[in-house]
Amino acid sequence: MPQNRKIVLKSHPKGPVGVENFDMVTDQTGPMAAGLVCVKVDHLSIDAFIRTTLDGGGFHQSAKLGGVVPALGVGTVVESGDPAFVVGDIVTGPMCSQEYAVLPAAMCGKVDTRLGSPTAFLGALSIATGLTSYVGMKYVAKISGGETVVVSGAAGAVGSLAGQVAKLLGAGRVIGIAGGPKKCAFLVDELGFDAAVDYKAGDVSGQVSALAPNGVDVFYDNVGGEVLDAVLMNLAIEARVVLCGAVSQYENMADVRGPKNYLKIAERDASLLGFTIFHYPDKYGEATTAMADWLASGELIVHETVGTGLENFPAAVRALLDGGNTGKFLLKVS
Amino acid sequence: MPQNRKIVLKSHPKGPVGVENFDMVTDQTGPMAAGLVCVKVDHLSIDAFIRTTLDGGGFHQSAKLGGVVPALGVGTVVESGDPAFVVGDIVTGPMCSQEYAVLPAAMCGKVDTRLGSPTAFLGALSIATGLTSYVGMKYVAKISGGETVVVSGAAGAVGSLAGQVAKLLGAGRVIGIAGGPKKCAFLVDELGFDAAVDYKAGDVSGQVSALAPNGVDVFYDNVGGEVLDAVLMNLAIEARVVLCGAVSQYENMADVRGPKNYLKIAERDASLLGFTIFHYPDKYGEATTAMADWLASGELIVHETVGTGLENFPAAVRALLDGGNTGKFLLKVS
Repeated sequence: MPQNRKIVLKSHPKGPVGVENFDMVTDQTGPMAAGLVCVKVDHLSIDAFIRTTLDGGGFHQSAKLGGVVPALGVGTVVESGDPAFVVGDIVTGPMCSQEYAVLPAAMCGKVDTRLGSPTAFLGALSIATGLTSYVGMKYVAKISGGETVVVSGAAGAVGSLAGQVAKLLGAGRVIGIAGGPKKCAFLVDELGFDAAVDYKAGDVSGQVSALAPNGVDVFYDNVGGEVLDAVLMNLAIEARVVLCGAVSQYENMADVRGPKNYLKIAERDASLLGFTIFHYPDKYGEATTAMADWLASGELIVHETVGTGLENFPAAVRALLDGGNTGKFLLKVS
Repeated sequence: MPQNRKIVLKSHPKGPVGVENFDMVTDQTGPMAAGLVCVKVDHLSIDAFIRTTLDGGGFHQSAKLGGVVPALGVGTVVESGDPAFVVGDIVTGPMCSQEYAVLPAAMCGKVDTRLGSPTAFLGALSIATGLTSYVGMKYVAKISGGETVVVSGAAGAVGSLAGQVAKLLGAGRVIGIAGGPKKCAFLVDELGFDAAVDYKAGDVSGQVSALAPNGVDVFYDNVGGEVLDAVLMNLAIEARVVLCGAVSQYENMADVRGPKNYLKIAERDASLLGFTIFHYPDKYGEATTAMADWLASGELIVHETVGTGLENFPAAVRALLDGGNTGKFLLKVS
């Protein structure tokens, strides 16, 4: 079995996570057995949920002290204990922060390169990113033609897709909220958003109001905090707020800032709709086909920010939380 | 025209409202004209929304300095400028804090005493209380048979009806949250709730969890704040939180405590549904008939707390916010 370099959690972060909360160690990969596969990790997906695993309580799940950090990845099967996979297969799964992952075959998905590149299976074709965008817009927000849609974290992995999906599903006007003029220009010039709001420029509520004078019909929120409150001030009657994430709060999960303006939801006959993609397995097929078709036709534009080297996993997680990426954030491991 | 005693707003409260924020003055009633009626106010409805009108901004509307305070009431027409009303008619409408109200006939509703007592038209048969309970449970929460329903502010005007309506609509188990053992006993012994949680006894989340071990399917929230957060910890998958009010926040509207646990809504595939009753005019008829039938059959139990004297309007508003009433809070004016 190959030597395995791993990033492990050294200490639970107190406040903002930093590289000092991690260690790199080298040991053997775990033992193989029937039903397991050993995967050489090619790319890891740097996602905001990772931060929530580091506190010991865990919004999604928990990283253990001394253990690897949960992360999705794509890699190549180097040893298989399951007839469904052969050496050389490209697979996605919960690889965690390491070079080699030994995991149950049932937790791996085979990459069908006719649908997209291997890294697309961490982005536009992944359950946690692409399918979350599609299902959130179509089956949670239930957007209908001509509506005004706002997406926060719009230059991020989910947001950049969610805004484009809204447009492809017939939204009248899609406004993205992102940090800084460069990301805002990216949304409009490269991804086809109708307009963008720079939250770093202040008065987000005023900016949204100016761009959506008749109110926001759908808000797809990845951010929470002040951005959520600003959009709540601009809801149209019967607006739907899709609660996808709250990256602004993931370093403060013990004392989350709840939406102070939540009473606007009552005032506007609106609703705040939570969802986890795992609640919609019956939509995976449709969503995958739709996203793959839009990728193939060029209607869906994918942008990747790619770091290199497993040793940079801690810095990448920090950078993600600081908004250092545009589009899907990946770490090339080998 | 009769002399008119009025309670007027003297100053905007800074924090908790007190009797010092009001004055009593006497002047003439306003001039009559075609389309207006003059009503001698019999009872005023002491509702939590009144507090939100006193800050100058206004969640619902605003009381003006030196002006009367918005309040619903029931009274007797003493002069009519509209063919739809004659002297002696009993009517409901936005009477405000005064003995005589001159208001547009179009804003008055005639009391049909075959359906209930005049004060029932401020409670079980009123739009803001009874119809809000019915529509919130049936058309917003869409409760279905056997579900576990929690109601906060359960000993209050809306909550005491909402819990009973849930039961009458087929809920499996109805749990009320109220302040103190006396109110809790009232819910179970007199109104037929299945169980009650005393929020003053602490650990509301633990109490709800013990009473609803499989989770809360519907939460009808009149309170907000810590109570809302406690119930959010106990949501079942696909739970619906009906956002009816937030009385705990009405003295703090400039810095509302948003629900810190709102991410549970995402985690549980739940939703937070805002509504205003005015969005459902097509349900008024059905709701009125249902409530009147349940009143007539004795299946719906109504409890009133009745104060006396217009001069006690400020103290009554204070008492309402302190939980001093059980059931509908009324002030007998004359």
